[in-house]
Amino acid sequence: MAPVQNARLIYKSVPEGYPIPGQTTVYDTNDSIDLENAPLNGGFLAKTLILSIDPFLRGKMRKPEKKSYSAEFKIGEPLYSYGVARVLRSATPEVKVGQYITGNFISFSEYAICPPTVLPSLTVVDKRPDLELRTYVGAAGMPGQTAYSGWKEHADPKPNDVVFVTTGAGPVGSLVIQLAKQAGCKVIASAGSEDKVAFMKSIGADVAFNYKTTDTREVLQKEGPIDIYWDHVGGEILDAVIEFSAENARLILCGSISGYNTGGAAPIKNLSMAVGKCLHLHGILVFRIFHKHAKAFWEEIPPKLASGEIKFREEVTKGLDKAGDVILAVQKGTNTGKAIVVVAEE
Amino acid sequence: MAPVQNARLIYKSVPEGYPIPGQTTVYDTNDSIDLENAPLNGGFLAKTLILSIDPFLRGKMRKPEKKSYSAEFKIGEPLYSYGVARVLRSATPEVKVGQYITGNFISFSEYAICPPTVLPSLTVVDKRPDLELRTYVGAAGMPGQTAYSGWKEHADPKPNDVVFVTTGAGPVGSLVIQLAKQAGCKVIASAGSEDKVAFMKSIGADVAFNYKTTDTREVLQKEGPIDIYWDHVGGEILDAVIEFSAENARLILCGSISGYNTGGAAPIKNLSMAVGKCLHLHGILVFRIFHKHAKAFWEEIPPKLASGEIKFREEVTKGLDKAGDVILAVQKGTNTGKAIVVVAEE
Repeated sequence: MAPVQNARLIYKSVPEGYPIPGQTTVYDTNDSIDLENAPLNGGFLAKTLILSIDPFLRGKMRKPEKKSYSAEFKIGEPLYSYGVARVLRSATPEVKVGQYITGNFISFSEYAICPPTVLPSLTVVDKRPDLELRTYVGAAGMPGQTAYSGWKEHADPKPNDVVFVTTGAGPVGSLVIQLAKQAGCKVIASAGSEDKVAFMKSIGADVAFNYKTTDTREVLQKEGPIDIYWDHVGGEILDAVIEFSAENARLILCGSISGYNTGGAAPIKNLSMAVGKCLHLHGILVFRIFHKHAKAFWEEIPPKLASGEIKFREEVTKGLDKAGDVILAVQKGTNTGKAIVVVAEE
Repeated sequence: MAPVQNARLIYKSVPEGYPIPGQTTVYDTNDSIDLENAPLNGGFLAKTLILSIDPFLRGKMRKPEKKSYSAEFKIGEPLYSYGVARVLRSATPEVKVGQYITGNFISFSEYAICPPTVLPSLTVVDKRPDLELRTYVGAAGMPGQTAYSGWKEHADPKPNDVVFVTTGAGPVGSLVIQLAKQAGCKVIASAGSEDKVAFMKSIGADVAFNYKTTDTREVLQKEGPIDIYWDHVGGEILDAVIEFSAENARLILCGSISGYNTGGAAPIKNLSMAVGKCLHLHGILVFRIFHKHAKAFWEEIPPKLASGEIKFREEVTKGLDKAGDVILAVQKGTNTGKAIVVVAEE
């Protein structure tokens, strides 16, 4: 069989601010691949079906000298992220042809030869008939797992605790809201549009507001003090929460998007208050803690997603050529619902 | 019996920077008290023997509108702190004449009528014959209890963990150093004089340095990454520790003296790193957590203090008239060892 086109989204340059399509990322159709004969080198050939577009991708678009928990993207190579791929050929017994696999190495290309080094981070998708494959990168995937394991690990909720969730309409935040409501907490949630505010209310938030038109400090002062905070933004909002937190509050630090495209989040002026309030701040990464909560997650969450007991929103974009735009939208927060790019149907 | 002099150290004005003797605090000998007839109003008459001079006193020298975990001192009244007093007369069955009592309400005056409202925070000193009474405000008192309960609650030490302790020659820090060495950790400790460096080495610190002449960042870069941090200073040092901390590090926030006399500690720029490193920051107040560890503390620590297995230093100053100078010395860090004022011998 003749080689076929292998379109790719290439990481072209380190962005200064937002990642601009055509500049930071470039869609390229010049490559091709021989699907029958391309050497596997002990790995496997995967066809990319679904790509998850998450805020953390911005952290991988950095200069190599800047260290972080996750490797930086290499200039000139395709991006990669969480996603779902179908195995077309395999030279390793751990992966079988026809399987759907997921992990944080799915290439932003139509096809990819995956080396055996990805095997430790690979999961075979045990797809339920009543959930879409794409949901395994969203509510049943990394974002859902982040919310679940971070909450179980550190929230320690009591009935009537006051919980504040930022980016509450996103795939992590929206599950945190619902877990907090299940636990009998009062939930305050913020997001950046009226549509998102309506969604947060629909999934149970007691107080939902648009942080662009309502002052977060005023809401916290009125509705707080805060017992549990789920932080996706860092900077001034985190500083305000420290000020308006209750004694013994748990602050779960999951991201700081306020700084991702601006050279860093605003410095924190109030951290010395953590002493007198006995605050507990916990940074979390899903891949460090999920294993402790995986069994409970798989037993509880996918059935509730399928039955509608837990609600989620997805914003599906078709075509790898659009992935650069979706990456930018996620950084700007203009997407509504978990951002997913469908590269191929099957 | 005629009234006798009741000298007092009066809180005179809110300091801008350091608390200046004669200005912030004024020694006054104009008051007197009738020891036999002064009405007790359901409380008791105490003779102040020992006063503990601690960094946190600065936090009580603030404007009333600034909220904190501990009430502010009242202008025109004597200061109060941890200390030991002897009961001269009592109108409550909970306190008996002749008992030595301790608590965070001991007046900076020769004598004081204590109201029944202090009873919940009062402890009768169960003095060992082989420990001095003054040690019950130091290594066996609030500072020792702070170190012990904060460490037991949050340090989670493993052998060979790297521990960094600031103000390591103080009564809290020096016990933290020794608890960390007991747990098999490598200990880095800082303080502000060569004498204190020598003391920290003598109690087991593997790396001890004078932060005034050696750059903390360089030490942390060379000797880190840090697994457990005991913070007494906040600001830039805390920020540096976040930068040089290991994954999953525990940062115990016990004070931020870098900001007490300067209008606040420097803002923290690196807190967003807490996400990628999965850091855990815990603010502690001894009176919120000691009850969980009190039994173990009383069983373990006083015998080890008496036998010399755990070492401690005290700097004893005689005379209430000197207390204002000692308060200033503690804020400036020019004292060596736990600062104690002996007001009366018996």
